[in-house]
Amino acid sequence: MTDIPSSHPRYASLKARERLVEGVRAGITSQAGLIAHGRGEAYDYLLGERTLEEAREAARVAAAMLLLADRPVMSVNGNVAALAAKQVKELQERIHELRVSRGMKEPAFVVEVNLFHRTEDRVKAITKVLRDQGVVGVLGEQPNARVPGLDHARALCSKSGVASADVVLIPLEDGDRAEALRAWDKHVIAIDLNPLARTSRAAHVTLVDELTRALPVIVEEANELEHRSQRTLASMVTGWDNPAMLVRVLGRISDRLTSLGADQLDPEGI
Amino acid sequence: MTDIPSSHPRYASLKARERLVEGVRAGITSQAGLIAHGRGEAYDYLLGERTLEEAREAARVAAAMLLLADRPVMSVNGNVAALAAKQVKELQERIHELRVSRGMKEPAFVVEVNLFHRTEDRVKAITKVLRDQGVVGVLGEQPNARVPGLDHARALCSKSGVASADVVLIPLEDGDRAEALRAWDKHVIAIDLNPLARTSRAAHVTLVDELTRALPVIVEEANELEHRSQRTLASMVTGWDNPAMLVRVLGRISDRLTSLGADQLDPEGI
Repeated sequence: MTDIPSSHPRYASLKARERLVEGVRAGITSQAGLIAHGRGEAYDYLLGERTLEEAREAARVAAAMLLLADRPVMSVNGNVAALAAKQVKELQERIHELRVSRGMKEPAFVVEVNLFHRTEDRVKAITKVLRDQGVVGVLGEQPNARVPGLDHARALCSKSGVASADVVLIPLEDGDRAEALRAWDKHVIAIDLNPLARTSRAAHVTLVDELTRALPVIVEEANELEHRSQRTLASMVTGWDNPAMLVRVLGRISDRLTSLGADQLDPEGI
Repeated sequence: MTDIPSSHPRYASLKARERLVEGVRAGITSQAGLIAHGRGEAYDYLLGERTLEEAREAARVAAAMLLLADRPVMSVNGNVAALAAKQVKELQERIHELRVSRGMKEPAFVVEVNLFHRTEDRVKAITKVLRDQGVVGVLGEQPNARVPGLDHARALCSKSGVASADVVLIPLEDGDRAEALRAWDKHVIAIDLNPLARTSRAAHVTLVDELTRALPVIVEEANELEHRSQRTLASMVTGWDNPAMLVRVLGRISDRLTSLGADQLDPEGI
């Protein structure tokens, strides 16, 4: 690992990047995943590196969907495991507890490893990282089903996971697979920093937010919903207008660009 | 190299990424460079993946600076070599020819390898890629000077390269080094897709454009300037308002976000 001087003004961000680079060395993250992370960094900068009100509202609806679902499943890839294994564990655990307390027939919140650049070694390494962190019942090592409409390697999934899920949480997902899951009649919750990504547009609910910030917000919002009726939760879901929310996020970015320009590009200041 | 199905809607972009990943395997690109590339992809998407009029204007002024300079130097890093060695060669060659025809005392356009994550192996590998492409007189393997104000590894440069240059072209440069070069009284030309990056703001002239598009545009604009007087070129340089140009680019991005939102987020269309 390169020695970044702590005097560097972007020290924190550079260290975060190096953790992901470390994920490549550990066989968890793909190199294409590093490029995807870079795209996310750019959009996060434009959002102001904070959870927007729009993301919190989306998290509330996502929490309602996870509590209402017959079979909720979270799809985890290499970047998710490298950046947020701890937050995945906390979300799985809390959603499970809340579903138990609400008397759901199948309370588990299943976690399944799904890779865009699938190799058996990476699936194994990611599964181990998740298990070591305390995530339970991790699927993905022995796929026995396919998402319709995708090429072979992208399509692989598990019968007792994604294939039988009614609600699927897809953090940092490829646009192709997000669209295929939607076409397969899954209810899709996405976490994606680009409000214009096909993943963001394909989802029923999109948290336009950075992953390690977004997952705990879903936990917080789920806690708020603990004692709400199924009917109240259902009306939150049916009342959600995802495209309208995405338009609001674009407006925020557009405003921020203008104000950053005014702050930082004063000719006198350069 | 992963087999990306040609049916994937972002096939071209994914293949470009894989070329950079290949650069990592060849020891040219750093993994942190992959993340930086991802940030660039995001900004390029926001620009519409085309050369804006603002970038062409900046390229014209950059060409004027390269023709006027006593000692112009181009700084090349791993991403630049992996993505654009051919364009670097073409720019070096053409600027040299034009400087010869204009009777400049030292007509060479020096190329120097400078890495943010410097290792001797990477400097060697990058130098070889550039030489194989036809770039001449590549410096950087034996640094014997330092950029003032930077930590040791970042500061290394060559006496007959960056240290004695009056004009430095820095494609895809780190913000720290861009600022240090400016503070060292170099005239700085940057190529950077993020109009708000410190590199973009520190430069005297910034081409907000993708590298492989931007370098040929400098060649085109230099050709247009072949028979202009030194005085005309000098007045182009002194009349350039870089912060005002960056503000215009931000306005373009902001407008594009709004129009993309309107096109793509029509609730009926989802």
